[in-house]
Amino acid sequence: MNISGEAIIGGVHERGAAGSFKAWDPTRRDYLEPSFHMVSPDQIDRACTLAGEAFDIFRKTSDQQRAQFLDTVAEQILALGDELIERAMAESGLPRARLEGERGRTCGQLRMFAELLREGSWVDARMDTPLPERTPPRPDLRYKLIGVGPVAVFAASNFPLAFSVAGGDTASAFAAGCPVVLKAHSAHPGTSELVARAVVKAVQLCGLPAGVFALLTGTGNGIGQALVGHPAIQAVGFTGSRSGGTALMAVAAARKQPIPVYAEMSSINPLFIMPQALATRATEIGKGFAASLTMGVGQFCTNPGLVLAVDGPGLEQFCAAASQALAETQAGVMLTQGIAESYRKSVDTLHGHETVTTLARIEHEEGKGGAALFRTSAEHFLTRHELHAEVFGPASVLVVCKDVGELRQVTELLEGQLTATLQIDPADYDAAELLLPALERKVGRILANGFPTGVEVSSAMVHGGPFPATADGRSTSVGTAAIERFLRPVCYQNLPQRLLPAALRDGNPLGIWRRKDGALTKE
Amino acid sequence: MNISGEAIIGGVHERGAAGSFKAWDPTRRDYLEPSFHMVSPDQIDRACTLAGEAFDIFRKTSDQQRAQFLDTVAEQILALGDELIERAMAESGLPRARLEGERGRTCGQLRMFAELLREGSWVDARMDTPLPERTPPRPDLRYKLIGVGPVAVFAASNFPLAFSVAGGDTASAFAAGCPVVLKAHSAHPGTSELVARAVVKAVQLCGLPAGVFALLTGTGNGIGQALVGHPAIQAVGFTGSRSGGTALMAVAAARKQPIPVYAEMSSINPLFIMPQALATRATEIGKGFAASLTMGVGQFCTNPGLVLAVDGPGLEQFCAAASQALAETQAGVMLTQGIAESYRKSVDTLHGHETVTTLARIEHEEGKGGAALFRTSAEHFLTRHELHAEVFGPASVLVVCKDVGELRQVTELLEGQLTATLQIDPADYDAAELLLPALERKVGRILANGFPTGVEVSSAMVHGGPFPATADGRSTSVGTAAIERFLRPVCYQNLPQRLLPAALRDGNPLGIWRRKDGALTKE
Repeated sequence: MNISGEAIIGGVHERGAAGSFKAWDPTRRDYLEPSFHMVSPDQIDRACTLAGEAFDIFRKTSDQQRAQFLDTVAEQILALGDELIERAMAESGLPRARLEGERGRTCGQLRMFAELLREGSWVDARMDTPLPERTPPRPDLRYKLIGVGPVAVFAASNFPLAFSVAGGDTASAFAAGCPVVLKAHSAHPGTSELVARAVVKAVQLCGLPAGVFALLTGTGNGIGQALVGHPAIQAVGFTGSRSGGTALMAVAAARKQPIPVYAEMSSINPLFIMPQALATRATEIGKGFAASLTMGVGQFCTNPGLVLAVDGPGLEQFCAAASQALAETQAGVMLTQGIAESYRKSVDTLHGHETVTTLARIEHEEGKGGAALFRTSAEHFLTRHELHAEVFGPASVLVVCKDVGELRQVTELLEGQLTATLQIDPADYDAAELLLPALERKVGRILANGFPTGVEVSSAMVHGGPFPATADGRSTSVGTAAIERFLRPVCYQNLPQRLLPAALRDGNPLGIWRRKDGALTKE
Repeated sequence: MNISGEAIIGGVHERGAAGSFKAWDPTRRDYLEPSFHMVSPDQIDRACTLAGEAFDIFRKTSDQQRAQFLDTVAEQILALGDELIERAMAESGLPRARLEGERGRTCGQLRMFAELLREGSWVDARMDTPLPERTPPRPDLRYKLIGVGPVAVFAASNFPLAFSVAGGDTASAFAAGCPVVLKAHSAHPGTSELVARAVVKAVQLCGLPAGVFALLTGTGNGIGQALVGHPAIQAVGFTGSRSGGTALMAVAAARKQPIPVYAEMSSINPLFIMPQALATRATEIGKGFAASLTMGVGQFCTNPGLVLAVDGPGLEQFCAAASQALAETQAGVMLTQGIAESYRKSVDTLHGHETVTTLARIEHEEGKGGAALFRTSAEHFLTRHELHAEVFGPASVLVVCKDVGELRQVTELLEGQLTATLQIDPADYDAAELLLPALERKVGRILANGFPTGVEVSSAMVHGGPFPATADGRSTSVGTAAIERFLRPVCYQNLPQRLLPAALRDGNPLGIWRRKDGALTKE
């Protein structure tokens, strides 16, 4: 399949009208063919307008139809075959096994939402029995969730399949009945085009309106701002940097009609090594931590960028084990030139920081990132805010606390996070109980005795957390609950059966769980 | 009980340190004793800080304990007896029967959330079975909702009990385990103090931390801005004007950590009279509409401020019936001087508008509002945005459309609304089906053959809608779903049983509905 370098609007390839750019192969360190063409404001407007026009038709499809559509998207992605993997390898520098796994995850996500639709209770159907004899009479009230409208999705650089064109944001928006206008990430435009073709094929095979999906190509901030500012767009999904996410939040808040932004942005994912665990498992934890830190050259949202430990038995063994494990790693190719450069600068700043000791540091190479581990005291960490910033890559800071009290103090100072991990032995449970209330307030996922990298896609996952981990701490971007981001409730009062959505009709024709006067029933 | 004119912070009455004001009796047209004292920035800070400190204790109370607390608040409000009703009558100009009904509704709301807590499934508990043999192994994942943190609640003027100190926002925040810092409305400060005393008494009787509730008194915008800007505050509930709500949205978005605002602001609640209904029931609809429009001197968020009808049989009968019914009404005392003045200006503007005919207009009197009905064409309405603005009071605009196509055109132009009402006969169902998709996109509640005033408090109610009806169209401020505004999910991965919340422990000790691998179960 030839990559055309074109956008796809209304199901039709069309050349972007505002300049061109090329993808970069970070492994070969050279540009890739062909050129990609940047969309113009008029093209953005048309994509959004078509999405708006497609919304009423798309959201009125049955859950079975949308489930079929999601399954078809997965099938069409698999049908792209090895060409997709090869292009993604070239554009991202990620290895084959990782990308094949990621493709599996991407298709798995689409199928998970298809299953959610088939189960049907995601609409949160509610019915209150009318009480005509009461004063005043209680009307017949029925409630369900519907899609919010067209969603602008911004693809991430670090998961060119699972958080990109047909990733979790797109899958959950489609499941909710929302058309998607997709801003491709300029780091993997060819991969994006291939997946977009698979989506467009699925749209056609399922007989859906072409406006259900559009692919916009380009670089810079202008496309995103025009997209989020477009009146047809009703919500935004984004995974990327804090500066990028907060810029989109500002555009969304300044609209004539403000809209919700779900931006997954920034997290340093603190790893707490509690005293007994440190005393008994320092070496094992050190090795495990180093493996988690360097996985995928540290380019995960859940990378453990902060380690918190109480000074005492095992601390030096942990430092030695982690440092040694990191010293045995090599600098790895990073996703983009910009990421590698930004990582190098951040590591150099930490290395030269007056309050910081360098425990391990792999030399940088052009376009590659080497692991690094730094050490400082809680006293310094509490006053130096620059030590709290996310470093995107395989670098982490160990903060040594005098006691559990100081550990709590540091915890209270942390910003919102995607995850917090507790290394605990049973003798640590009392201390852990002291930390847990703060962790619940600060993070979306609390782990015990594991590492934060590796995000399960399932019903009970939360990949979210208070700002700045995400723009909206009431949400998750991974797992079935991600659909809730793109839903809003509508109540129907005394509507005749014929005008009610099927999910709310008498006799429960869809056979789903519903709430009758507050109580769950399938009657 | 003497009204002290003081704020209540940490359970203790304290005199506001920043000037004083008095309540106004709109019926007697005179100030009421005593003076109320405005809180200073330091007092606001202390109230918020105490709320932040109380949060971890309050949210860890059991559902049974918080249910008991909500029931106790209701009991303590009833124990205030007639003094509460009399003060509320004096401050609001509302009649006794209305306020007694509103007190019943307020206590009913508190008890409804108590029942929701006792049922227990509001936490949306989820568990995914670990798969240790899988590659990679699937961890043990458990998910539940927790409170977001302290909530700033702004009381409304038009429901001095049900949308005020212990109204729906406060009840739903308490149910979610969130402390409340309440900004009293300056139109009914004495009523607010009495109800606040009831809440504080309930806090004490239930042994909760005093920071769970604070009452802030004052006038102007400064208190609200300081409150919403305070770092301890994690969400905002507001009912009031569009300008007030959007000002708070701007403060919340500009915070270092942006927070969600649930502002219920502005709605003109279109009433669609479909052709067959108009032909067969014009007089009945006209009378019912007039009664809905003038109920409570039109001071309801769901007041029908816009009527849409297709020119044809029955139109003139409707106009005659509505005009005659309105002509028989008298100007009524409005809640505040400001509301009456603003209403007078808006009605005079419509009366003098070049595209508008006046069908009925009751003369204004000082502090009172008289009903008014205006008529214009869809052609004019489509181009004159000033005709779309909410007029808070018993005034409405009839927009006559040439045909159902023009009706759709007008519908598409409308801003977000709390409600839309369809007057339909079976012969109108086809036409209604054409309108419904747009209505679902634009409004929170769709009614057939009733009138929008009168909002049931129940499981299936939506009192919300897309901006500007509310700040966040994904929410309702009435009914059990209102609790969702103040919740966020947390995931627990591989946590030992002892460290898990009771709702997520093995064996389902709370006996609640949970999702096991996505499927609802009580096992």
